[in-house]
Amino acid sequence: MILALAGGVGGAKLANGLARILSPAELVVAVNTGDDFEHLGLHVSPDLDTVIYTLAGVANPVTGWGRADESWNFMAALGELGGPTWFRLGDRDLAAHVERTRRLAAGETLSQIAAHFCVRLGIRHPVVPMSDQRVSTMVRSNQGWLAFQDYFVRLQCEPQVLEIRFEGIETARPSPGLERTLQRDARLRAVVICPSNPFVSIDPILALRGVGDRLPILKTPIIAVSPIVGGQALKGPARKMLQELGYDPSALGVARHYQNFLDGFVIDRRDAALAPAIEALGVRALVADTIMTGEAEQIALARHVIDFATQLRALR
Amino acid sequence: MILALAGGVGGAKLANGLARILSPAELVVAVNTGDDFEHLGLHVSPDLDTVIYTLAGVANPVTGWGRADESWNFMAALGELGGPTWFRLGDRDLAAHVERTRRLAAGETLSQIAAHFCVRLGIRHPVVPMSDQRVSTMVRSNQGWLAFQDYFVRLQCEPQVLEIRFEGIETARPSPGLERTLQRDARLRAVVICPSNPFVSIDPILALRGVGDRLPILKTPIIAVSPIVGGQALKGPARKMLQELGYDPSALGVARHYQNFLDGFVIDRRDAALAPAIEALGVRALVADTIMTGEAEQIALARHVIDFATQLRALR
Repeated sequence: MILALAGGVGGAKLANGLARILSPAELVVAVNTGDDFEHLGLHVSPDLDTVIYTLAGVANPVTGWGRADESWNFMAALGELGGPTWFRLGDRDLAAHVERTRRLAAGETLSQIAAHFCVRLGIRHPVVPMSDQRVSTMVRSNQGWLAFQDYFVRLQCEPQVLEIRFEGIETARPSPGLERTLQRDARLRAVVICPSNPFVSIDPILALRGVGDRLPILKTPIIAVSPIVGGQALKGPARKMLQELGYDPSALGVARHYQNFLDGFVIDRRDAALAPAIEALGVRALVADTIMTGEAEQIALARHVIDFATQLRALR
Repeated sequence: MILALAGGVGGAKLANGLARILSPAELVVAVNTGDDFEHLGLHVSPDLDTVIYTLAGVANPVTGWGRADESWNFMAALGELGGPTWFRLGDRDLAAHVERTRRLAAGETLSQIAAHFCVRLGIRHPVVPMSDQRVSTMVRSNQGWLAFQDYFVRLQCEPQVLEIRFEGIETARPSPGLERTLQRDARLRAVVICPSNPFVSIDPILALRGVGDRLPILKTPIIAVSPIVGGQALKGPARKMLQELGYDPSALGVARHYQNFLDGFVIDRRDAALAPAIEALGVRALVADTIMTGEAEQIALARHVIDFATQLRALR
């Protein structure tokens, strides 16, 4: 079994590649919920939705979030009525937020709702939230403390990041699906950290008690795929954050961030020259094509990751 | 000044006719909120929205509810996710429910929200809810007690109605706009009861303390327009309810229902033969074209009602 830890777009793509070659019994995708937030009275789970939409084949390939074949009439009418329009919610996408909120109010957990959405959208692989308790990523910036979506969407990652905190992390527990998977260490072929933002997509998952602190003692190899290619983030503020938080703004900076528990690191061909420096950290480096433009590339990268896990197990 | 009491479609049409010929200082439209309900965690105000959309010129002329140029992608996606789809909410229409719910949660009253929506949609005449407190129309039927929208939409008015109750009516107060208008008796030219369902659109307004009990002592004429034409309701279950509740299923039955306070009753040409029986109740009858197929007919009927009010005042 493979446990994939995922954030939004990049995580969703690799998770989809893994799902195309592993059976539903061989893969669990645990998704960041640190950027969940209440908007318009609705519980919005951006990363969970991106992963679910991607695995269901209904993700919007242009925006990287929301649904394909989307319409925006709700948003237009909300603007007419003077409602807040800075966070864009498409008409189809909105259904997930309304239905999730309705089910949460009725006492269901995020895990139960994600499982239900998967069934409805024909996804057979388990997609679980990192936690059923609320964890909120907060960004301390040169403009003070900001809720994540304020920083990310409203201010478009403009403020300088000084510190990141996960509100509620002390009392949050890993979701049952994530907890159960980690406990089956003997059956795990690998933990795969998808190419998502280390600070705001992966760290919230790792910050949960019983997740990050358990990784160094797991018997299974832990492999990350770099979200930084050629010194650039493919999407989002990962590069800018690396720099602002004092890391090298490169795949090497990401490897350093994960080095305490990382066994293998997949970097792009463009970054092949960084391999020796990564290996010097005690982390095996694998060079591959990591830009997943289509499903073929997602599957190819997933195969590299699985083969890499097999090699790393053999080395132990 | 004219105070119009309105429910949904028929009420909205006459209110629109009145608004086209009266200045914003000469008209207050007070709207039934007894069929407001919580759906999908949202506060839905069907009659308020129908009146506001109609006055704003964005009402759906085909369905009689919701907005013109509507799309249904939210509903389709909600169905995919297994959410409840028996109550149809269009993508544009949904914005009103989400924004209303958001503002209610922030502490605004229904009156404030209606006033805000009117400003945003370019409506200059005051449209006020009957009350800012929750009143819920309940229908006792041969299938037991039903919430109004369960009866009206889900069960499509199929059950036999035995009794109607307005939950919360004892503690609800008329909204500030309705209260203020009623207190200006000396300035009122008429109270106009629009052609809406007497039992579930108008009675909830009249059942408010200080509204129905004040009508018989007002100096201004009280005029109703029959929602029944030729023994048929133009829309909705008014005819069926008249019958089930023991009234004559005709304009005469409606006149009898209102007879305690009614000064004048406008009936359709098709019902001219009922005029003597109506006048025998001590209610003046006016025969007119009451079917408002377009704005011209709305304005024409509004003129008849205003002229009728002038005559009735002269008779006092």
